[in-house]
Amino acid sequence: MQRYFLTNTITTTVDSVFELTGESVHHWLKVMRAQPGDQAEFVTRNQQVVIGKLLSSTTTTAQVAVQQVTTPQVELPLQVLIACGVSKGDKTEQIVQRGTELGAAGFIFFDSQYAVAKWATNKRERKLSRLVKIAQAAAEQSHRTVVPTVSYQANLSTLVQQVSYDAGIVAWEESAKQGESSQLVQTLNKMQPQQRLLAIFGPEGGLTSTEVSDLNQVGVVSAGLGPRIMRAETAPMYLLSAVSFSQELV
Amino acid sequence: MQRYFLTNTITTTVDSVFELTGESVHHWLKVMRAQPGDQAEFVTRNQQVVIGKLLSSTTTTAQVAVQQVTTPQVELPLQVLIACGVSKGDKTEQIVQRGTELGAAGFIFFDSQYAVAKWATNKRERKLSRLVKIAQAAAEQSHRTVVPTVSYQANLSTLVQQVSYDAGIVAWEESAKQGESSQLVQTLNKMQPQQRLLAIFGPEGGLTSTEVSDLNQVGVVSAGLGPRIMRAETAPMYLLSAVSFSQELV
Repeated sequence: MQRYFLTNTITTTVDSVFELTGESVHHWLKVMRAQPGDQAEFVTRNQQVVIGKLLSSTTTTAQVAVQQVTTPQVELPLQVLIACGVSKGDKTEQIVQRGTELGAAGFIFFDSQYAVAKWATNKRERKLSRLVKIAQAAAEQSHRTVVPTVSYQANLSTLVQQVSYDAGIVAWEESAKQGESSQLVQTLNKMQPQQRLLAIFGPEGGLTSTEVSDLNQVGVVSAGLGPRIMRAETAPMYLLSAVSFSQELV
Repeated sequence: MQRYFLTNTITTTVDSVFELTGESVHHWLKVMRAQPGDQAEFVTRNQQVVIGKLLSSTTTTAQVAVQQVTTPQVELPLQVLIACGVSKGDKTEQIVQRGTELGAAGFIFFDSQYAVAKWATNKRERKLSRLVKIAQAAAEQSHRTVVPTVSYQANLSTLVQQVSYDAGIVAWEESAKQGESSQLVQTLNKMQPQQRLLAIFGPEGGLTSTEVSDLNQVGVVSAGLGPRIMRAETAPMYLLSAVSFSQELV
């Protein structure tokens, strides 16, 4: 069933009626060609999933009757914030799309010293709003109840100051080369449900040793993610899968 | 350092000289513009990594002196065979590229009932040889010592007959929806190093319940990979990351 995220707060008692507004109306009525009586899923702002039936519509609003309400547990037990150096081409989009499917709570893109790409200041807002749309579409498709946040930080120092987190790791190739293989497990073992894990990844060019040691100084630990070298957009997928495996399956 | 896979068997004692042939010669001499004295890494057929120095060359061969030999442990402890329904667009290429970075031992593509794409018989060999090249390039970049195999099977029944494996799982959305979350862990716990895990994934359209029950009948167990719905090309990445995490980091 088609799924939409609601931006307004609604009453979720069965048989109550709410008004759907915004882009979802256009998608449901025009793209999906919904007719009165047709159903869709609507995710409320407090992560309930409402099955709603179309009653009537105008070109910009739809009246929807609440038919069933559930509270599925589909979010990762830890809130994982994926921080990545800005990368070339569609890599940032891939990170957001796949990372959303894999349960990330948010994405932070930052400029770094070895980055081969930069976001021009005048294009930054447009890039971020495109990534927000990708996150929303991926959240709908993967049946999540939360749309991950997407934001930007000028560099790693401001990032660790501005972002709140309970534990932080930085994926660093040099750690992996030296055989470091226990920090991720140790970090995950220490964490409590709903705590925030900040996971930092370099751009294609990697991070500088200064960037990494500055992170280490504020308590962000270097962690190896296995002995193979992964590309910039693959490493966050590894991390999110590992968090899901260890927290949801083991 | 640039890395090449050798197709011929060489003597790996230090200071011995071997002849490099094939496409690697062209890449090293013409693309990388190697000069006498320059070094590269060469992976032997028994997974040793040789640092070699260019002595001299013709247009089709290069004489290389062995300088150093190591046997790095960068392969997954389990041999994971990723079997995927044929998918549209560049999804098969993405599965091979990313799956190679994440340590897959091989890829098998199969035709299935709900597949929205088919490989025309006359194009199959060309597609497979393109995927083999992608696997080789990704293996070089991720510093692996084995190039994964790539093959095709007409359907799931012939696949499970033709492919040898010690344990098999099929990722099935319906299992995940019913809250199945222990089969992957149980399967991994049972396996011994170097055993072969066959992991089967549907195409975009999913597998039919008949295809899944036929697999279950031959001992391939349905396994949930967490509560979120993943696209066809994301699920194999989850599985490979989970195998690495559980076998290489925990």
